[in-house]
Amino acid sequence: MRYLSAGESHGPELTAIIEGMPANFTVNLDEINFQLSRRQKGHGRGGRMKIEKDQALVTSGIRFNRTTGAPICLKVINRDWVNWEDKMAHFGEPLENIELVSRPRPGHADLSGGIKYQQRDLRNILERASARETTIRVAVGGLARQILEQFGIKIYSHVLQIGSVKEENPVRPFEAKDTAEWANKVEESPVRSYNSNTEKRMMDEIDKIKAEGDSVGGIIEIIITGAPVGLGSYVHWEHKLDSKLATAVMSVQAIKAVEFGLGFKVGERPGSQVHDAIYHSEEAGFYRNTNHAGGIEGGMTNGEPIIIRAAMKPIPTLYKPLESVDIETKQAFEASIERSDACAVPAAAVVVENAVAWELANCFLDKFSGDSVEEIKQQVAAYQDLIDNY
Amino acid sequence: MRYLSAGESHGPELTAIIEGMPANFTVNLDEINFQLSRRQKGHGRGGRMKIEKDQALVTSGIRFNRTTGAPICLKVINRDWVNWEDKMAHFGEPLENIELVSRPRPGHADLSGGIKYQQRDLRNILERASARETTIRVAVGGLARQILEQFGIKIYSHVLQIGSVKEENPVRPFEAKDTAEWANKVEESPVRSYNSNTEKRMMDEIDKIKAEGDSVGGIIEIIITGAPVGLGSYVHWEHKLDSKLATAVMSVQAIKAVEFGLGFKVGERPGSQVHDAIYHSEEAGFYRNTNHAGGIEGGMTNGEPIIIRAAMKPIPTLYKPLESVDIETKQAFEASIERSDACAVPAAAVVVENAVAWELANCFLDKFSGDSVEEIKQQVAAYQDLIDNY
Amino acid sequence: MRYLSAGESHGPELTAIIEGMPANFTVNLDEINFQLSRRQKGHGRGGRMKIEKDQALVTSGIRFNRTTGAPICLKVINRDWVNWEDKMAHFGEPLENIELVSRPRPGHADLSGGIKYQQRDLRNILERASARETTIRVAVGGLARQILEQFGIKIYSHVLQIGSVKEENPVRPFEAKDTAEWANKVEESPVRSYNSNTEKRMMDEIDKIKAEGDSVGGIIEIIITGAPVGLGSYVHWEHKLDSKLATAVMSVQAIKAVEFGLGFKVGERPGSQVHDAIYHSEEAGFYRNTNHAGGIEGGMTNGEPIIIRAAMKPIPTLYKPLESVDIETKQAFEASIERSDACAVPAAAVVVENAVAWELANCFLDKFSGDSVEEIKQQVAAYQDLIDNY
Amino acid sequence: MRYLSAGESHGPELTAIIEGMPANFTVNLDEINFQLSRRQKGHGRGGRMKIEKDQALVTSGIRFNRTTGAPICLKVINRDWVNWEDKMAHFGEPLENIELVSRPRPGHADLSGGIKYQQRDLRNILERASARETTIRVAVGGLARQILEQFGIKIYSHVLQIGSVKEENPVRPFEAKDTAEWANKVEESPVRSYNSNTEKRMMDEIDKIKAEGDSVGGIIEIIITGAPVGLGSYVHWEHKLDSKLATAVMSVQAIKAVEFGLGFKVGERPGSQVHDAIYHSEEAGFYRNTNHAGGIEGGMTNGEPIIIRAAMKPIPTLYKPLESVDIETKQAFEASIERSDACAVPAAAVVVENAVAWELANCFLDKFSGDSVEEIKQQVAAYQDLIDNY
Repeated sequence: MRYLSAGESHGPELTAIIEGMPANFTVNLDEINFQLSRRQKGHGRGGRMKIEKDQALVTSGIRFNRTTGAPICLKVINRDWVNWEDKMAHFGEPLENIELVSRPRPGHADLSGGIKYQQRDLRNILERASARETTIRVAVGGLARQILEQFGIKIYSHVLQIGSVKEENPVRPFEAKDTAEWANKVEESPVRSYNSNTEKRMMDEIDKIKAEGDSVGGIIEIIITGAPVGLGSYVHWEHKLDSKLATAVMSVQAIKAVEFGLGFKVGERPGSQVHDAIYHSEEAGFYRNTNHAGGIEGGMTNGEPIIIRAAMKPIPTLYKPLESVDIETKQAFEASIERSDACAVPAAAVVVENAVAWELANCFLDKFSGDSVEEIKQQVAAYQDLIDNY
Repeated sequence: MRYLSAGESHGPELTAIIEGMPANFTVNLDEINFQLSRRQKGHGRGGRMKIEKDQALVTSGIRFNRTTGAPICLKVINRDWVNWEDKMAHFGEPLENIELVSRPRPGHADLSGGIKYQQRDLRNILERASARETTIRVAVGGLARQILEQFGIKIYSHVLQIGSVKEENPVRPFEAKDTAEWANKVEESPVRSYNSNTEKRMMDEIDKIKAEGDSVGGIIEIIITGAPVGLGSYVHWEHKLDSKLATAVMSVQAIKAVEFGLGFKVGERPGSQVHDAIYHSEEAGFYRNTNHAGGIEGGMTNGEPIIIRAAMKPIPTLYKPLESVDIETKQAFEASIERSDACAVPAAAVVVENAVAWELANCFLDKFSGDSVEEIKQQVAAYQDLIDNY
Repeated sequence: MRYLSAGESHGPELTAIIEGMPANFTVNLDEINFQLSRRQKGHGRGGRMKIEKDQALVTSGIRFNRTTGAPICLKVINRDWVNWEDKMAHFGEPLENIELVSRPRPGHADLSGGIKYQQRDLRNILERASARETTIRVAVGGLARQILEQFGIKIYSHVLQIGSVKEENPVRPFEAKDTAEWANKVEESPVRSYNSNTEKRMMDEIDKIKAEGDSVGGIIEIIITGAPVGLGSYVHWEHKLDSKLATAVMSVQAIKAVEFGLGFKVGERPGSQVHDAIYHSEEAGFYRNTNHAGGIEGGMTNGEPIIIRAAMKPIPTLYKPLESVDIETKQAFEASIERSDACAVPAAAVVVENAVAWELANCFLDKFSGDSVEEIKQQVAAYQDLIDNY
Repeated sequence: MRYLSAGESHGPELTAIIEGMPANFTVNLDEINFQLSRRQKGHGRGGRMKIEKDQALVTSGIRFNRTTGAPICLKVINRDWVNWEDKMAHFGEPLENIELVSRPRPGHADLSGGIKYQQRDLRNILERASARETTIRVAVGGLARQILEQFGIKIYSHVLQIGSVKEENPVRPFEAKDTAEWANKVEESPVRSYNSNTEKRMMDEIDKIKAEGDSVGGIIEIIITGAPVGLGSYVHWEHKLDSKLATAVMSVQAIKAVEFGLGFKVGERPGSQVHDAIYHSEEAGFYRNTNHAGGIEGGMTNGEPIIIRAAMKPIPTLYKPLESVDIETKQAFEASIERSDACAVPAAAVVVENAVAWELANCFLDKFSGDSVEEIKQQVAAYQDLIDNY
């Protein structure tokens, strides 16, 4: 599969075309919309999340709930477009008194983008570089994860840190007494925390930072269960699963770091405390008692849950302004205030979940490539046999 | 540009074909061999590094030191092949008494690879999954960085941590009094440290760990100077430079984490202490006084040095063995000891440098795509004019 | 550049996302619509061409007539959708009495597609396989050719044969006394013929065939002028320009053959009458007096006009039905009659023109890859200098 | 799968790296060498075919006759290299008295390539543009066809025309009384003709043309039997099988035209005589009694044999020289004579066969994508079940 996306933050719609989806997968539109709604939640969000109640539309590739094999066009309409039709018109001359954006914001694509694409109205940069673009990525991921779920692969996320508040004893869904309860608790938490105590402290941190006119980032964790052994590959550097998932994670706006399993801690410990011993039993086949590797060895899934952590920087649109320089006058100014979120870390967790879902679904369909769900099911079963008899 | 590589650890040669290199670049073979020699150094390396003095060969695409535009075939001969010709023969029946590898080592591709590719002799996995493969990637990077250097882009690396020993006050090449002196000092250090005190402690750490029959990993930092504004792009998630560089870094064997600029620390600090204010002067154009972003904003270079850190896990081939299970007998055993390095962190820094060089050269030639160096020079100059007049 | 397209024949819209277009190109929407209207013309078309007056819409990537560097979403609304909303609904259960298409038409994708994608309602195949899909390809080509035209590259087409009527002495636009007059004459001809006599005979042929309840194909020729020397390459088989253009041409529905320059006639003549001698003059530089190669040697443009011919099969939806077999009952039947064109050769010429425009624009931007039109203009000028001084 | 190739006509070796080959395929090196020997045969070949007895070598990805899943490096050593080491040295200064090639040959890449890559020694162009490169493509195809053959897919070729001599009643292998006998007869014919009478006339034509100091081209036909229904796809223009095969064919040096099934003749006939009626029987499933489509409808295999024809131009290196211009002096000259073949059409048939084998094997493995031959066999069987029950 592959997809392209298009659309500006204040354009008429965000659009994606997904090509290579096998036929006869049952798709649930509500599930995609559920992912979109999760992206809009979280303590510390600003005004726009209330303007837009994002809904996905499909215009091709699905008929009566099932994929046909043809490319799928997914879109999310921007309801705010009516207020921008003149300012963002695709054709015709610009309004006479249109206000150019000439003041690049630190931490954004504005300045480098303006130079690269030779734009003097930085609106032409920020409209596409905006995190609004993650909306369509969530929709695409919301489709991709439905494939994964039909084969028992699930994706979870929670927040491990917001500013100075850190979850010291993180519990993962597969470590919780009741995985469904874990998921529900996290889903209902405004900061995606399983721990009520941490949750309270994180919300206080956000409120405090917001009151100071500042913003705050954090650390999120993605957990994937149910992936079969052998997704990804070591045979060519471009096929390594961790490398591919890192791409997906790092491509999300504001993410500055990514790690798997023990992550940076592998630099501290001796080897005897890093690698996961291999065991075997009749019922379970090969298994591990530890998961320091985060489910990936040699660029492939090893059958254990995949564990990814990522760091998100604070949203750079600040009430406490940063110094910058006008590109026309070359005069210094303090970076302008736009409608802003004090903290978007819980939303970022949802975005990264879905970006990862896409990449993983793709790796899954690289291995099980039939043209219809009927074929794929037979392929998965045949491979399971090979695993069981290994 | 694109390249494919082939070759097993104990096969006759490692080979790469590089396609899309413009014509008339002057290539220095000694420079590629210098990169290969750097990869073989470092305190804590085992026996093999002495067996192989790697040398690159070219069989196409270059004539009288200059690229012709045709694909370049680069190779490194494995001198050890003579001892493996029978055991690794490409054709013919296996030797009668050949010893199958049936004992997967934790932390390696062995078990997942054996299942995925349905191999019962795990030698067929470990031969390709081996870090020996990084040799050819270094050769390819050694070619790519020559392109970058012709346009003033330089790549450095040093080691920030080995096991429990951490460099507390890292100095980067562009922060040192004398950049060349920094580079020389690091190059001569058996642990790639600029700080003699830290260097001593790191070497002691390696010796201690080795004496315990264990291994140790660490954290490395890559610094790139001289990259022009606007490499990479925000317009499509697949073009983001940090995402692409993360792919390159994570694809190196044993790397489990990667971060840019402040990295995971962005999760702690308020936004006002994360973003880099923008300044301008007649002489310097736009510039920054801080570089928390690590040279990348909005998925593009912003003109500041690119700063990447990565964590390498300890080499999983241990003298202090780990538990595992034989794939034939299903009996537990303690993982076998192969010739091994106690610490390969300094070498990993060199590998990552060169993996990053390839990716960056590729992004550079995406932007400046002429068929000959003559065209590219004119493109770079024309773009510099656009930057200067922005 | 790359693009994906989506959309069914009776879905709500046809959509394309084009990624990689440099910034600051001026785009004329009327020009795209002009291409769409050309596709709908021609003697021998059936009813649908009157239902749909295709109009392109843009929803991203262009602002005030100029590209911004962001992906461009292009779409064409299907006005007939209102009549199909229930039958082609993306979600919800199928209508109770919905009529399944179980009768595959010879010459269409119906049967192979049904088997491949495991569909029992062949509507799920024919909706995407339909030539309606060429609409969006023409829109994309209509955008791409505007890039080419800004650099003096023009694309023409005419019809050389319809059924038994053949143009014996074809005149190409660059051979005509007045190129503009040639283009106007062809454009006004209902069969895209420059020769009034041939035109009359072709129209008669179509009328005769139609009266017999049959359909008819033909041969078209595409001519491209103004392409600079050196597009495409011999260095790797995938970069050969003729190979790439052949892909574009053959991918158009109903095309069964493609040739360049003398084409199949090269099999007859001795070498001394096939190759184009090279001349040089101060004013013209290197030039040829013949163009048997059709403008391409060694997989590259050689500066002469590119000449491509392609054969289109008759539209397989016939009033004179063909035998086939129902996939449910396995009973023979005579293939059903759908709304149909007796001859779509003139339209196919327009489609192929635009499919070729995309591919050529892509090769052009591979060579001249700047992020803005400002950069590209400098690159083109610099390359022209190199040509002039060669 | 994907592959890259490298190597010059007079360099040390031709090399290919093939990536993505599943594990456990049995590979026969003799079969690859057999393909190489077929490429060197044919009436009308010049001197070089006697110098080089091409032999393939493998340096990775295969162990004891079976693929391991790792990339395969294939090479063919140029035995002539010893005579060219100085003139074609990769490093070091050029010999003092080296003779530059400054005289571009019409019909070759020389002139356009020299301008594109800014080379003044046209040897740097002709070495890579040479048809010698097809050697490695044949080796790659010789590997790919072994995959196809394991699933019952066979590729044949014969020559239909050489110069003025045309086979009027071509018999295809599946139309012959005995397919094996057809194949043997063609294989033993110096012009790849099944018809002894035509064979004699073709050989006479070549001798006559050669005596005139001229060269001659021709038309070849490729026939593929046993391909399952549903390779390729209509869902996206880039996946159409005919389009992909056309790419492979057109990318072979000197090919100027390609057609499928009736090819250009579809432009003449009415639709009722072009499309292939569909029949069904219990034993055979769906089938056709005609094959005007050449086995491809809607961009997919339809279960009938694939039939491709291509035209090859006469080799442009002539004893009867063509006019050209020296790039240094700008003086006219008559194009220099190099060692040359009067007719390479039979060899071209072998090259195209193998180029097509690669592309088809790739399409096959797109549909049946397991990591091991064990998985693929189960996939093929499962799909066959779906076909049988359709």
